[in-house]
Amino acid sequence: MTSQIPFHGRLVILGFGSIGQGVVPLILRHIDLPRSAITIVTAEPRGQEVAQDYGLAFVQEAVTRENLDRLLRPLLGPGDFLLNLSVDVSSVALIRLAQEQEALYLDTCIEPWAGGYTDPALSPSQRSNYALRESALALAPGGATAVLTHGANPGLVSHFVKQALLNLAADAGLPVAVPEAREGWAALAETLGVKAIHIAERDTQSAGFPKQRGEFVNTWSIDGFVGEGCQPAELGWGTHETALPADGHRHDFGCDAAIYLMRPGAATRVRSWTPLEGPFHGFLITHNEAISLADYYTVRDDSGAVRYRPTAHYAYHPCDDAVLSIHELAGKTWRMQPQKRLMMAEIETGMDELGVLLLGHARGAYWYGSRLTIAKARALAPHNNATSLQVAAAVLGGMVWAIENPRAGLREADALDHARVLEVAAPYLGEMVGVYSDWTPLAGRGALFPEALDADPWQFSNIRVV
Amino acid sequence: MTSQIPFHGRLVILGFGSIGQGVVPLILRHIDLPRSAITIVTAEPRGQEVAQDYGLAFVQEAVTRENLDRLLRPLLGPGDFLLNLSVDVSSVALIRLAQEQEALYLDTCIEPWAGGYTDPALSPSQRSNYALRESALALAPGGATAVLTHGANPGLVSHFVKQALLNLAADAGLPVAVPEAREGWAALAETLGVKAIHIAERDTQSAGFPKQRGEFVNTWSIDGFVGEGCQPAELGWGTHETALPADGHRHDFGCDAAIYLMRPGAATRVRSWTPLEGPFHGFLITHNEAISLADYYTVRDDSGAVRYRPTAHYAYHPCDDAVLSIHELAGKTWRMQPQKRLMMAEIETGMDELGVLLLGHARGAYWYGSRLTIAKARALAPHNNATSLQVAAAVLGGMVWAIENPRAGLREADALDHARVLEVAAPYLGEMVGVYSDWTPLAGRGALFPEALDADPWQFSNIRVV
Ligand SMILES: NC(=O)c1ccc[n+]([C@@H]2O[C@H](COP(=O)([O-])OP(=O)(O)OC[C@H]3O[C@@H](n4cnc5c(N)ncnc54)[C@H](O)[C@@H]3O)[C@@H](O)[C@H]2O)c1
Ligand SMILES: NC(=O)c1ccc[n+]([C@@H]2O[C@H](COP(=O)([O-])OP(=O)(O)OC[C@H]3O[C@@H](n4cnc5c(N)ncnc54)[C@H](O)[C@@H]3O)[C@@H](O)[C@H]2O)c1
Repeated sequence: MTSQIPFHGRLVILGFGSIGQGVVPLILRHIDLPRSAITIVTAEPRGQEVAQDYGLAFVQEAVTRENLDRLLRPLLGPGDFLLNLSVDVSSVALIRLAQEQEALYLDTCIEPWAGGYTDPALSPSQRSNYALRESALALAPGGATAVLTHGANPGLVSHFVKQALLNLAADAGLPVAVPEAREGWAALAETLGVKAIHIAERDTQSAGFPKQRGEFVNTWSIDGFVGEGCQPAELGWGTHETALPADGHRHDFGCDAAIYLMRPGAATRVRSWTPLEGPFHGFLITHNEAISLADYYTVRDDSGAVRYRPTAHYAYHPCDDAVLSIHELAGKTWRMQPQKRLMMAEIETGMDELGVLLLGHARGAYWYGSRLTIAKARALAPHNNATSLQVAAAVLGGMVWAIENPRAGLREADALDHARVLEVAAPYLGEMVGVYSDWTPLAGRGALFPEALDADPWQFSNIRVV
Repeated sequence: MTSQIPFHGRLVILGFGSIGQGVVPLILRHIDLPRSAITIVTAEPRGQEVAQDYGLAFVQEAVTRENLDRLLRPLLGPGDFLLNLSVDVSSVALIRLAQEQEALYLDTCIEPWAGGYTDPALSPSQRSNYALRESALALAPGGATAVLTHGANPGLVSHFVKQALLNLAADAGLPVAVPEAREGWAALAETLGVKAIHIAERDTQSAGFPKQRGEFVNTWSIDGFVGEGCQPAELGWGTHETALPADGHRHDFGCDAAIYLMRPGAATRVRSWTPLEGPFHGFLITHNEAISLADYYTVRDDSGAVRYRPTAHYAYHPCDDAVLSIHELAGKTWRMQPQKRLMMAEIETGMDELGVLLLGHARGAYWYGSRLTIAKARALAPHNNATSLQVAAAVLGGMVWAIENPRAGLREADALDHARVLEVAAPYLGEMVGVYSDWTPLAGRGALFPEALDADPWQFSNIRVV
């Protein structure tokens, strides 16, 4: 992408944390709009100097149920853009507002109002991403384009899955016509025999000094991570799975593509693999893509019964300081640490190795994704670390798609043109690689202690760490 | 302890890692023997300069089944001392040799021959500390004094338990005659209603820079920690426990005071508490004291049936870098990292907060133990960090007791004079504190997810993290 994309509306950026600040340089570089058209609305002074440096209007006021209308409606009209990069503001309320105003919309997470992730008055099913997704999909589907959950993951990884499927097909010598619609993509996944999809991520970024006690450290939103980490673990539930986990539950509403476990994702570990890390234990943090991928890649028989669906979930190895932060948080029975530190300038080394791991096909395991080092990220854009730049790249890609397709209504990442989005995002993703592996979750298992292992390596019961 | 303890024999120090090097300055300070009487026998060049600085003979040869006799027998005769601070050499073989030579003996861990902790030909029961302890206790009980497993833990913590019981009794206004024998101590624990004893340790020592990938970092023996971490989790099994864990097993031989879980201790977490850390998740690493304490504090009725016994186990929060090291190791299915780093000079901050947490008595929870900072440890003795100095202090205390009681035969820490040992060790333990707490493992539980909690807080099922 060399030329700028013209955009004639106003742009409201809601929330100006790591992603908001990280995406601004990309927007100014690739979208042609005057700086005076941009307004930042956010809850804290964080990022004010950055806004100032770029000459962007900065409104510091937390959006609530009560002031949402007063604050945002005047800033949005037909052809404007609401870019939601906040926490604690209901995405559904924002989408509704944007659609009423005929403004474009994009977010990177379906957020509830503050406290919604951990409201003990809600059941685990009601606090799930499954429920949040259903509430968003229940909105009117048409109208101005609203791109749902289009960061790196959820977001970009849906496009990685499509590219990975095409690569697998090509390598297998299958005819590789790019499917035009959902049904074609789902059929391709079924044909290839993909049983499970991990979002397999290893973040190795680290500062030159260690995490302090009482400090939650991460490379992106700490509120966001703790919020989703305290939601139930969730996963798209594949047709090859022979037994629901003992603590697994189906929801009694909605698409039924996913299950949840009766425990927080931050306390749930799974075995996974990336090319540079090798085998690792990741956290099964709930994410929209776990549900949307399973839903999107569903094949039904003529009676409408589900014939094929992959298992899909996150397997997240955050930066080491975040692993320690979770350990500390769990030890305090999920009572948040007094200090938060979102690592940015202090990062000295590391990369975010973020990709999709397709499992169970003829060649076993195939990882496809982005390797972005902190050094490369800094060379590519200011105000970013490797993690935020992968997200910012995805946000840019999604915005460009929305601007180019302004009347597409509500869309998840899976329903966007993956090639176009990847084309826009690619310059910011570092090295894109596809690697086959003979890794299975059975490797090295049961040597010292008997374990109840399933002969099919790709059963979730083998993946899960108990 | 101001004056030196005279010792007229030769001293063989087997193994010269963190503990061996740490204990030498204390021995030279407090035990009156010529340096020419000391020989170090060890497998690696590690510590050679330290030996040289002190003018100690240094034999670099790994002890094996085959060369044990040739190497060590000539160095040991009546009144000599074999101080075993090695890994990978069978403690039972060494004790047998020492007893045959009528030499004193002390170790800090009952070690098997190399590979014994993870020999897949052995059953988990056979690889347990329970089995190692039984094999040591099966040796002839009389003869020259052989002090078993007398480091900080196992070791010192047995004396902490006694002091903690006396403190509890005094605070409760009970008559505090110091019991003279095992039966009296066990009766005191029963009278006080102690249901469970945690060895509750939080090591906060850290370097100024983070752990690298592929590196196992710890503040004491990495081989030792990984070895015991891969053994089954083990715990003394109290009479108040109402249900054996689903993966819990009794051994079919020996004292029956302890059970093991069918999984490695390094993969088993428990809830515990220390005064400075507050609530935390620790690892249920198997240790000799978990078994010896439960055995020692057993009360039988007239028929010989067990009427009272506390649950006892380790709840270890190693330094943060070791938490990460375990996480990485588990992710690699217990295949050891290529690099090991035993932190010593690079430690910049932190302390070892090591104590015993007595639970279930009238006042709920009482922690008694040592707080030793790295700064204080360095001020007290060279070649130590806080962890090694707590161990070295215990080794010194045990050696002094052995020298003063040379014909006491085989002894575990519980069967030593706790007051004398603590008197010798105290100058090296930093601040000794006793703190009551209203902490229970039920605090904050079940808020977001239903949990199967027992109304009795002190059931192991509440303590364990699943
Ligand atoms: N899909 C992905 O790949 C991905 C990756 C990272 C982050 N995210 C999501 O993006 C969002 C932002 O992440 P981040 O790392 O920038 O978070 P952050 O915590 O760094 O920043 C959050 C921002 O939201 C603002 N905010 C909080 N409450 C608000 C309110 N009531 N009204 C207006 N603004 C409010 C804060 O002031 C802050 O500027 C989160 O929802 C996060 O989950 C998604
Ligand atoms: N009870 C406690 O509180 C406590 C605390 C720390 C360590 N320990 C135990 O003390 C022992 C030593 O700990 P460390 O931290 O000094 O260990 P370390 O790993 O630092 O050193 C071990 C030493 O043993 C030597 N060794 C290895 N194989 C040998 C062989 N075949 N023959 C002779 N020497 C051999 C090594 O060369 C090294 O010098 C271990 O058994 C450990 O579990 C006990």
